[in-house]
Amino acid sequence: MTVTVPLGERSYEVIIEDGVLSRAGQHLDLNRKVLIVTDSGVPAAYAQAVAAQAKSPVIVTFPQGEESKNVHTWMTLLDALVEHNFTRTDCVVAVGGGVVGDMSGFAAAAYLRGIDFYNIPTTVLAQVDSSVGGKVAVDYKGYKNLVGAFHQPKKVLIDPQVLSTLPPRQISAGLAEAVKMGLLFDPALFSLFESDDYQDHIPEILFRSVSAKAEVVGQDETESGLRRSLNFGHTVGHGVETVSGYSLLHGECVALGMLPMCSPSVRARLLPVLLRLGLPTSYRGDTEAVIEAMGHDKKRAGGSITLVRCDAVGSLRFETVPFETLAQEMREVLA
Amino acid sequence: MTVTVPLGERSYEVIIEDGVLSRAGQHLDLNRKVLIVTDSGVPAAYAQAVAAQAKSPVIVTFPQGEESKNVHTWMTLLDALVEHNFTRTDCVVAVGGGVVGDMSGFAAAAYLRGIDFYNIPTTVLAQVDSSVGGKVAVDYKGYKNLVGAFHQPKKVLIDPQVLSTLPPRQISAGLAEAVKMGLLFDPALFSLFESDDYQDHIPEILFRSVSAKAEVVGQDETESGLRRSLNFGHTVGHGVETVSGYSLLHGECVALGMLPMCSPSVRARLLPVLLRLGLPTSYRGDTEAVIEAMGHDKKRAGGSITLVRCDAVGSLRFETVPFETLAQEMREVLA
Repeated sequence: MTVTVPLGERSYEVIIEDGVLSRAGQHLDLNRKVLIVTDSGVPAAYAQAVAAQAKSPVIVTFPQGEESKNVHTWMTLLDALVEHNFTRTDCVVAVGGGVVGDMSGFAAAAYLRGIDFYNIPTTVLAQVDSSVGGKVAVDYKGYKNLVGAFHQPKKVLIDPQVLSTLPPRQISAGLAEAVKMGLLFDPALFSLFESDDYQDHIPEILFRSVSAKAEVVGQDETESGLRRSLNFGHTVGHGVETVSGYSLLHGECVALGMLPMCSPSVRARLLPVLLRLGLPTSYRGDTEAVIEAMGHDKKRAGGSITLVRCDAVGSLRFETVPFETLAQEMREVLA
Repeated sequence: MTVTVPLGERSYEVIIEDGVLSRAGQHLDLNRKVLIVTDSGVPAAYAQAVAAQAKSPVIVTFPQGEESKNVHTWMTLLDALVEHNFTRTDCVVAVGGGVVGDMSGFAAAAYLRGIDFYNIPTTVLAQVDSSVGGKVAVDYKGYKNLVGAFHQPKKVLIDPQVLSTLPPRQISAGLAEAVKMGLLFDPALFSLFESDDYQDHIPEILFRSVSAKAEVVGQDETESGLRRSLNFGHTVGHGVETVSGYSLLHGECVALGMLPMCSPSVRARLLPVLLRLGLPTSYRGDTEAVIEAMGHDKKRAGGSITLVRCDAVGSLRFETVPFETLAQEMREVLA
């Protein structure tokens, strides 16, 4: 299955296909210097499989985890590009989850003001969401994605087979983003989570999620309009993530963050879906600390904040409210 | 005088006007948080004049010089943005030369994946060239502009009056880029340097140079085609600059770098122009070291290098040659 992200000259394909990792060279131009970036949580065989298909591969592996997503690690990627004399016509390939994709994408964006970037996401989270759309960044001073760029990949390869090695908790967390896409854009996708066992529908879930994302990104690449809707659940979610010290997974935080943004009727449908997936539905941490952490959120402008609401499955609505209104809702719904 | 850089939705104006610095608030939206970036070589009154017109100004001053143009200084700008809670709707204003513009532009490009950026260049070099076109970067591991972005300013204000405080050597060096624009695109501009005292024509030189640059950038924003022509003289120039340890000014290096790229007849006209401006016409350093330094130049791909040649004033030609051919020409012309 192939999804095209429609961005004019910068359009690109997302190929969803069992075993595509081992055929990467058929889809990507690897006949040049290729910096393959991965982390210690990804089976080393994946990066090696890509390297085996490249003319001049260099593999860089950094320690797994959000703690690695910083300017320091980003500079180690730049160092590798410099050391191996990468030119404008060479490329970077991410083989891993969202952290690997974000950080290697930002290295590709900044090196010589931008070289080719391919993404081969290996987690559900990265496959359904972060690998598509060109948002790349590193965390900075404790704030998520504070420093980065919009740098679209030239192609994305999604191999559902690699998910078989993932821990169930990580799969569930990743599916939270697919639930989000269903809630906002695709009622059939959402219904699938309500009525069926997701394990029987992984390729369809990936395809539907990526298709919805591609359409949104095609309409609003740099997040000045519709794309902001993808922050549904993330305003609160990022706050929870920061305060939890990343002990909660991103998707778990997004699951929590979606709840206060839903109308009561949607929330009544969302809760059992989250429970079935083993995702959290209430926050046991310090809600006030989360509110404080959100104070720096990038969606905030002045004293107000623009929220994405879901009043009915398959729809969304932007609403700008005083920051204090959001804080109050969080106290009511999350605690 | 106003020049428009034609880039569709991202088009912007370059306003060339005596005293415009002190009226910046009339042209720029400073009714928000404004990070004003300057360096120790720029009269502090300039940044203060802009601050006086801003709602919430923050001034950051770093030490003058190419040595400051690195990731470390860039991070101090990011730190200031974080510390003062800048949001997506706030902005950065550069008040200084090329180093200030490049570094503050890259901070604006990367912070929250891009916030508004204004440039108020205060050197000839920045006014005729680097402030227009959106190329922003920092040096890295000894290589110029290795890490950066394309991030267009929202507006550029050029105040010729500020040039009165510049040392003559810096003015001459900056004019090397104007000579370049004349050589490639504007024979009347080049003739002006041959026949007249440039001091009587500063606003015209700025306007003609910026107009030519705007047209090139409008045709090729990301330097995949015509814009590469602006690297005329820079391939060799960057090498000289690196090896000189930045004891030679950028424009002086460009002057040297243009010479081997000109046909003998053009070179015969260029030499007296450079001499009149007090620019160097021969390199007393280690030519072999320059050749070595150029080996990492970003225009290099594989073992060949694409050069920009000028065979007649007002024209240019791209030529891809083996790296060794360039090395040999440099040995002949520069030494």
